[in-house]
Amino acid sequence: MSAAPVTVLGLGPMGRALASAFLAAGHPATLWNRTSGRADGLVENGAVETGTAAEAIAASDLVVICVLDHDAVRAVITPHAAALKGRTLVNLTAGTPDEARATADWAEAHGIGYLDGAIMVPTYLVGGPSTLVLHSGPADLYERHRDTLQAIGGTCVYLGADPGRAGAHDVALLDIFWTALTGVVHAFALAGSEGVTASDLAPYAKGVAGLLPDVIDAFAEQVDTGSYPAGGSNLRSAAAIMSHVLDASRSRGVDSTVISAAHDVARRGMAAGYADDSYAHVAELLRG
Amino acid sequence: MSAAPVTVLGLGPMGRALASAFLAAGHPATLWNRTSGRADGLVENGAVETGTAAEAIAASDLVVICVLDHDAVRAVITPHAAALKGRTLVNLTAGTPDEARATADWAEAHGIGYLDGAIMVPTYLVGGPSTLVLHSGPADLYERHRDTLQAIGGTCVYLGADPGRAGAHDVALLDIFWTALTGVVHAFALAGSEGVTASDLAPYAKGVAGLLPDVIDAFAEQVDTGSYPAGGSNLRSAAAIMSHVLDASRSRGVDSTVISAAHDVARRGMAAGYADDSYAHVAELLRG
Repeated sequence: MSAAPVTVLGLGPMGRALASAFLAAGHPATLWNRTSGRADGLVENGAVETGTAAEAIAASDLVVICVLDHDAVRAVITPHAAALKGRTLVNLTAGTPDEARATADWAEAHGIGYLDGAIMVPTYLVGGPSTLVLHSGPADLYERHRDTLQAIGGTCVYLGADPGRAGAHDVALLDIFWTALTGVVHAFALAGSEGVTASDLAPYAKGVAGLLPDVIDAFAEQVDTGSYPAGGSNLRSAAAIMSHVLDASRSRGVDSTVISAAHDVARRGMAAGYADDSYAHVAELLRG
Repeated sequence: MSAAPVTVLGLGPMGRALASAFLAAGHPATLWNRTSGRADGLVENGAVETGTAAEAIAASDLVVICVLDHDAVRAVITPHAAALKGRTLVNLTAGTPDEARATADWAEAHGIGYLDGAIMVPTYLVGGPSTLVLHSGPADLYERHRDTLQAIGGTCVYLGADPGRAGAHDVALLDIFWTALTGVVHAFALAGSEGVTASDLAPYAKGVAGLLPDVIDAFAEQVDTGSYPAGGSNLRSAAAIMSHVLDASRSRGVDSTVISAAHDVARRGMAAGYADDSYAHVAELLRG
């Protein structure tokens, strides 16, 4: 059996990585981008670039879209409801769970199969064994296209029928990634203000990153059970530490807006009576 | 040669862990805490608890202090300058680089040897092989007490004569740790608002944490060289993602102050013309 054709709409860095992975797995790939000239290298490897989205959609039963955001998704697909009818649209664009559900509703109303998905690795890992892609939407659609979607690489996980469920994981995981990286970049700025280069700090920063998995497991259990034993470090101590980071930043004129917001979360936790508990207790404050 | 005596001032969770590690390595340990009754278990293992800080200080040439913050350090040591004269004070209390330098100046003015240090692991790892402790201050003092300090476990690193240098690393690394954990707890709250339990999310969250070391290396090189090639993901895309996280939080009434502050950093980066660069470019904005 020859590999199923795939259409990829959107050739930003991630769209190009997806197209490359489908081609590498032997799938005939038809590509389209809002502005042309982004298929270089892919066409040489056998892809077909079309001048219009309609032509690209007509080429495959499976249409993958990966663009900047859901507004861009809607701008691309809304004019092509008729062309998409009876096909499966797999939306790998990052967005909110509600956006995924709204697009799923639109697709259903137009007789279009809809799967949502979230790619949990940077573009350069796509197609390789460490790729992780989370999918949600109708189980039969996922089963039908699983072999093709597997070309994206590594591990594909099906999370259930709610089309927003992949997005719910995605926003939460991207929340961790980008909040943490904001901390990393801020730490480099702060260390730099004290004459410590980013490369001096990096080995220790990686050591800190290596502590996170154990804490993630401990905090997850605490949040799910609603019991927050402090273990080695309590909220009072976390608040004191964030206060040091804040003071050190301010004393060197380093922007402190993010650590200040985090410190404020800790202070609200203290005010709520959580001082002797694990920092994870603030999840209950954040939940609103 | 018998192991050198050590005095530990402060028996919070970290002070107790330190005392335990010194005892386990065979050092006679004299302990004091502002409130008594915190030496249970340690006294049974051979430690001596004193009723006053003065008695504890008199017992050892090496005096380790680990309390809540530098204000607490000053409250403990200021009345005991005469008793500390000629001894070495190792301050393992978390604080800012300037606080460490101020305490070093005070110590020097009173003829007290001063080393600053930062313990880079949670209390439960202290004494074990994965412990990391960063020290700075006079090299001869570090050499003299290195064997004793090694009892804290794992790796002791000497960073140089500036007593603030350990603290500079410490605040930057704690910045990463607590900013990242704020992201983790927020992500659990956000996922929970979508019916995804913290334990559902945790395996993927650990996967995200596993991506950080490579990004830390890449960002460190960019920050040190002032060149910010985007690679797979640029600032525009990071800003769009943070905007999704923000929208998803707001739509479920989840507190969004920290991700909002991070998103604002990204927006300022866009305004500064960094949209097509790596997110690390915002280090230049944060630096002030």
